[in-house]
Amino acid sequence: LSVEENIMATHTVDRASAHEILPQFTARWSSRAFAPTALDEAQLFRVLEAARWAPSGSNTQPWRFVYALRGTPEFARFLELMVPFNRSWAAHAGALVALVSTDTLPDGRPHPSHAFDAGAAWMSLALQAHAMGLHAHAIGGYDRTAAPAALGLPAGFAPQVLIALGHPGDPAALPAELLTRERPSDRKPLSDLVFRGSFAPAQAG
Amino acid sequence: LSVEENIMATHTVDRASAHEILPQFTARWSSRAFAPTALDEAQLFRVLEAARWAPSGSNTQPWRFVYALRGTPEFARFLELMVPFNRSWAAHAGALVALVSTDTLPDGRPHPSHAFDAGAAWMSLALQAHAMGLHAHAIGGYDRTAAPAALGLPAGFAPQVLIALGHPGDPAALPAELLTRERPSDRKPLSDLVFRGSFAPAQAG
Repeated sequence: LSVEENIMATHTVDRASAHEILPQFTARWSSRAFAPTALDEAQLFRVLEAARWAPSGSNTQPWRFVYALRGTPEFARFLELMVPFNRSWAAHAGALVALVSTDTLPDGRPHPSHAFDAGAAWMSLALQAHAMGLHAHAIGGYDRTAAPAALGLPAGFAPQVLIALGHPGDPAALPAELLTRERPSDRKPLSDLVFRGSFAPAQAG
Repeated sequence: LSVEENIMATHTVDRASAHEILPQFTARWSSRAFAPTALDEAQLFRVLEAARWAPSGSNTQPWRFVYALRGTPEFARFLELMVPFNRSWAAHAGALVALVSTDTLPDGRPHPSHAFDAGAAWMSLALQAHAMGLHAHAIGGYDRTAAPAALGLPAGFAPQVLIALGHPGDPAALPAELLTRERPSDRKPLSDLVFRGSFAPAQAG
């Protein structure tokens, strides 16, 4: 597709919801086009505040947030954790946030839902960012072995995702290989995801 | 506290956000007071539709939903998975939903973020339910060993949470031990959760 066709495609992906929901859920998507301007700390804290109020198992709140603002030495350190593809576009973000969680309960037992709970916090963060006109894009493609030391994580804390956060940029400024991906992604139909009473998948043979 | 004092307490917990966010994040909380009426399947599907649009690693959408409507034989089967405390109040819900996720990528490798991604879907589900005037309460206290068979899960699918979903009930109808908990929970301050550059916790000694 040409650049123009790709920009058009951004607006023609069918994200019509099959059942009526709040517009925030389909309007939000994971863009890679960031304006290379720093994010105000005040804006960052609003985004993290939303995450803070997420529910969690026994209200344990296992999430923690380590951040780097654009233009600081730590920003480069966060970027270096990413695989090159993600680094190429996340380099333009206004802030990078490492969402980490504690895998241990206060009583020392393993936390059964720390990753799940961290995911709830991420969703709140993403929706608040969207409401503020910001882009938030979670990145799973990073060096999970190197991340704990690079982020200064104490024992018992596990990295979940790196989040690129910032003001929207012009998609036309993206390199071609990124521009082709610069559109809201589709989803499986609800009928593939929902089962009444029992999962009971089609048994082969 | 007396019943009356507890009901008052529901309205006096300080959920003022420290930074301006959408009201949905602090207004939503995990009540245990359900009106014992079945949930319409159409309403259930609206709630699940919101979950469907959550972001996930490489858009893999690892979440699946197995549900039981109040008044059906499967509803009792779902309830039996819960520890007695949760069963006591979830028995009044209009529907129970098991949120499960696949721990394997399409290419057979382990899915690094299936629990995290499922948590994002749960948050969307909870916010959509709240917007519809419904209560959604995630339950981690259930028999994780028995759940896969009871839910008919194929190999590679892991249960995350059971979700009690339904119309709000009268808190005054709750037994005393539940009524004392029937209030929005607080959260740690953001200053305990957020670190600039490095986690760098206070080092003891």
